[in-house]
Amino acid sequence: MEQRIGLLGCGTVGGGVIELMRRRKQRLQSLTGWEPIIARVLVRDVHKERSVSLAEDMLTNDPDVVLGDASIRIIIETIGGIEPARTFILEAIARGKHVITANKDLIALCGEEILEAADAAGVTVLYEAAVGGAIPLIRPLQESLTANAISDLKGIVNGTTNYILSKMTETGADFDEVLKEAQDLGYAESDPSSDVDGLDAARKLTILASIAFYTRVSLSDVEVTGIRKITARDIAYAHELGSVIKLLAVGTERDGALTLHVRPTLIPKSHPLAHVSGSYNALFVRGDAAGDLMFFGRGAGALPTASAVVGDAIEVLKTMRQPQNGGYAPHPRPHKPVDQERAESASHYIRLSANDQPGVFAKIAGVFGDHGVSMETVLQKRVAAHSAEIVIVTHDVHARHLRAALKQLEAHPDVTTIHCIMPVERSVNA
Amino acid sequence: MEQRIGLLGCGTVGGGVIELMRRRKQRLQSLTGWEPIIARVLVRDVHKERSVSLAEDMLTNDPDVVLGDASIRIIIETIGGIEPARTFILEAIARGKHVITANKDLIALCGEEILEAADAAGVTVLYEAAVGGAIPLIRPLQESLTANAISDLKGIVNGTTNYILSKMTETGADFDEVLKEAQDLGYAESDPSSDVDGLDAARKLTILASIAFYTRVSLSDVEVTGIRKITARDIAYAHELGSVIKLLAVGTERDGALTLHVRPTLIPKSHPLAHVSGSYNALFVRGDAAGDLMFFGRGAGALPTASAVVGDAIEVLKTMRQPQNGGYAPHPRPHKPVDQERAESASHYIRLSANDQPGVFAKIAGVFGDHGVSMETVLQKRVAAHSAEIVIVTHDVHARHLRAALKQLEAHPDVTTIHCIMPVERSVNA
Ligand SMILES: NC(=O)c1ccc[n+]([C@@H]2O[C@H](COP(=O)([O-])OP(=O)(O)OC[C@H]3O[C@@H](n4cnc5c(N)ncnc54)[C@H](OP(=O)(O)O)[C@@H]3O)[C@@H](O)[C@H]2O)c1
Ligand SMILES: NC(=O)c1ccc[n+]([C@@H]2O[C@H](COP(=O)([O-])OP(=O)(O)OC[C@H]3O[C@@H](n4cnc5c(N)ncnc54)[C@H](OP(=O)(O)O)[C@@H]3O)[C@@H](O)[C@H]2O)c1
Repeated sequence: MEQRIGLLGCGTVGGGVIELMRRRKQRLQSLTGWEPIIARVLVRDVHKERSVSLAEDMLTNDPDVVLGDASIRIIIETIGGIEPARTFILEAIARGKHVITANKDLIALCGEEILEAADAAGVTVLYEAAVGGAIPLIRPLQESLTANAISDLKGIVNGTTNYILSKMTETGADFDEVLKEAQDLGYAESDPSSDVDGLDAARKLTILASIAFYTRVSLSDVEVTGIRKITARDIAYAHELGSVIKLLAVGTERDGALTLHVRPTLIPKSHPLAHVSGSYNALFVRGDAAGDLMFFGRGAGALPTASAVVGDAIEVLKTMRQPQNGGYAPHPRPHKPVDQERAESASHYIRLSANDQPGVFAKIAGVFGDHGVSMETVLQKRVAAHSAEIVIVTHDVHARHLRAALKQLEAHPDVTTIHCIMPVERSVNA
Repeated sequence: MEQRIGLLGCGTVGGGVIELMRRRKQRLQSLTGWEPIIARVLVRDVHKERSVSLAEDMLTNDPDVVLGDASIRIIIETIGGIEPARTFILEAIARGKHVITANKDLIALCGEEILEAADAAGVTVLYEAAVGGAIPLIRPLQESLTANAISDLKGIVNGTTNYILSKMTETGADFDEVLKEAQDLGYAESDPSSDVDGLDAARKLTILASIAFYTRVSLSDVEVTGIRKITARDIAYAHELGSVIKLLAVGTERDGALTLHVRPTLIPKSHPLAHVSGSYNALFVRGDAAGDLMFFGRGAGALPTASAVVGDAIEVLKTMRQPQNGGYAPHPRPHKPVDQERAESASHYIRLSANDQPGVFAKIAGVFGDHGVSMETVLQKRVAAHSAEIVIVTHDVHARHLRAALKQLEAHPDVTTIHCIMPVERSVNA
């Protein structure tokens, strides 16, 4: 059965939502029992070009066409800002519609008003995308971790500042220079103050702290310092001290009292937050039962944000039916064959012992070459008399080519033992 | 209203569940609308000493006393292993009880049977604690990320092997030596094979892959290599190559086919998984919409595991009432004052410029000393003629002491400018 959805806004996030719902059409249906349809899309300018193709009669610039449509029971808001998003959402709630939003500004400032209205109207409002983009944060804090008294939240929740600080760290350039570059690349807004002065992070902290500390926090409770004053020299000294500088949103609860700060902070390289670079976001959480946890991933972008929005939509659609034992068994699921050779090629580490004689290494290299295995790094050590230990890191190689090469090497008169073979993980973290 | 719960098993995890439910009594009630009571506890030996105090009539060694109690609608299973846990759980389901379990062996081997039985009986079975202890993994994969086609799972899901590999990396000792030490400390079982040969990790991968790839995977599909053959030398070479060695559980989907491996793997230090050391667990996930994500935290232990079990219990209790807009606003919540000075003391980084004259540094150090601020590290650089730049990292200091010292320094005739003040994050990762 169809379930009609109204989408408010069709920019970066709204376009991503349409794209992802199309991609996952089948799964949404089998998971929720509904066939969700984006029936109407509200925009400012119906003639503007869109990243997704839309039937002409879906688009409108008249909010009443969407909000007044009684057949629409779910509204997804991706306009952003306080007004008119607030009025639209309150009207949708008053009309008994469930609401999903990615709007951190609105939830940080008017979350209480909106969620109380939802409670009174008996509808659901979800906002996982408002903090940390694709990273599941709101729901894990509210559900999986709700048995904890959470004492500490530490988040890298603003991608723009993290990108700027990461670039400053990599290149040694100063703030102004990197900001300019980030603006040219579209990673920072032409008016960057909401990001670089820490306000966006403060809004997100307001939302996270309210949930994690199981209370209500307002934006004015957060003490905010931005990153404008950080120089290349601070970054160099932090490095000398074994640390990196990050804009950290920090909330703590001690004896029932909270502290709430957003400010640049040195983080030792041994801390997992130190390795959250570029446009990634992360949240570190300490609970009295769970101990230390970290969540890491993409904090923004069309599809990462849509991932959270559509996840919320699935949740709403599910609760429109009966609760289910989702996940492991219930739905008829496609059979997927297991094919261990199917994975793409990978770099490998190989350690072997061989006779320590001139020409032996060339012979080994020849065997690899014959099987199309090329080498990235070679370490050669004399270990005992007449015996050398050789460590080879290959370029990407298919399992069967590597196996063929190793089989020939095992039988090779100059190779004593092949000690160890391991795949080498690629770096992530753009 | 009371909601009676039956607990099967009262060892490490069962004891943690009782402890945590007592600690969070108030919150459980306000979140779920029920007053959950552990009414009966099944053990082998009712006379054994327990980590938690229990009324004598709660304990029993007769499964029928728990499973046959019609007033008990929720069962928490913390016995472990296949039988009798499987039979007990199936009987509870048949009697219309909801079930929460931490039993990865059982879910990996009989998950399908159990969840199909639950579906048929219209009850809920949750098992968040079965993989990754306190880390929310199952529910985020099933809910928040369910709009993604997940292509890659990479997990450090066995704490024992991660501890051993971390220790080998730190100390340069060999496998046998570190294993023995881990056994003496109780971090490894006397029969360590399930851990060090990778079987425990394979069971967890079976569960995660079934959910993430939206299909059914059996344990025999996983190709397993343990860590017995890793030597100190491999670890040293990995280090030379800028990498660390981890036992990785890896699942991939390409073109509808899966690969499933557990094996030691080199991970470059720039990869977030490289920094998951000691007894921590982590899961790296790649989704087509969300991009790259990582979840990190404690994979075992009484309270971390109880955190997940009680989180599941709250979920079950909630769905016994109406769905709610949990989290931000609905429940009456305690007011918590914001007190920015309340946080415990922290180490701070301070960069300032001062006249480059003999004795100036001593004067600055004196000002800090007068306010009880002690220094951990000092870097002093001559920057321009007559002007020195000084970087100070303090030991832990209270904000008001630091502020007082800085106020005095600002007015000091030899101090030109205080450029930058930042807190310094402590390391985590035991
Ligand atoms: N971008 C991200 O990566 C990201 C990540 C997390 C959360 N968010 C949040 O998601 C929301 C949307 O962000 P976005 O980047 O998608 O913004 P965007 O690209 O600027 O899109 C905004 C959309 O709203 C429409 N709109 C604006 N004012 C309107 C009005 N008065 N009436 C009707 N429609 C109106 C615009 O219509 P036209 O197209 O006709 O101009 C546009 O389609 C914001 O709350 C943002 O904070 C964004
Ligand atoms: N320990 C962890 O950190 C951890 C982490 C994640 C998941 N888990 C999972 O949690 C489960 C429990 O682990 P655990 O470490 O808590 O185990 P444990 O300390 O050995 O406790 C097992 C409990 O079950 C009881 N029991 C055993 N056999 C029984 C039987 N036939 N009938 C009735 N009671 C029986 C025992 O009774 P007695 O006390 O009378 O002997 C004991 O109370 C396992 O599935 C494990 O894989 C554990």
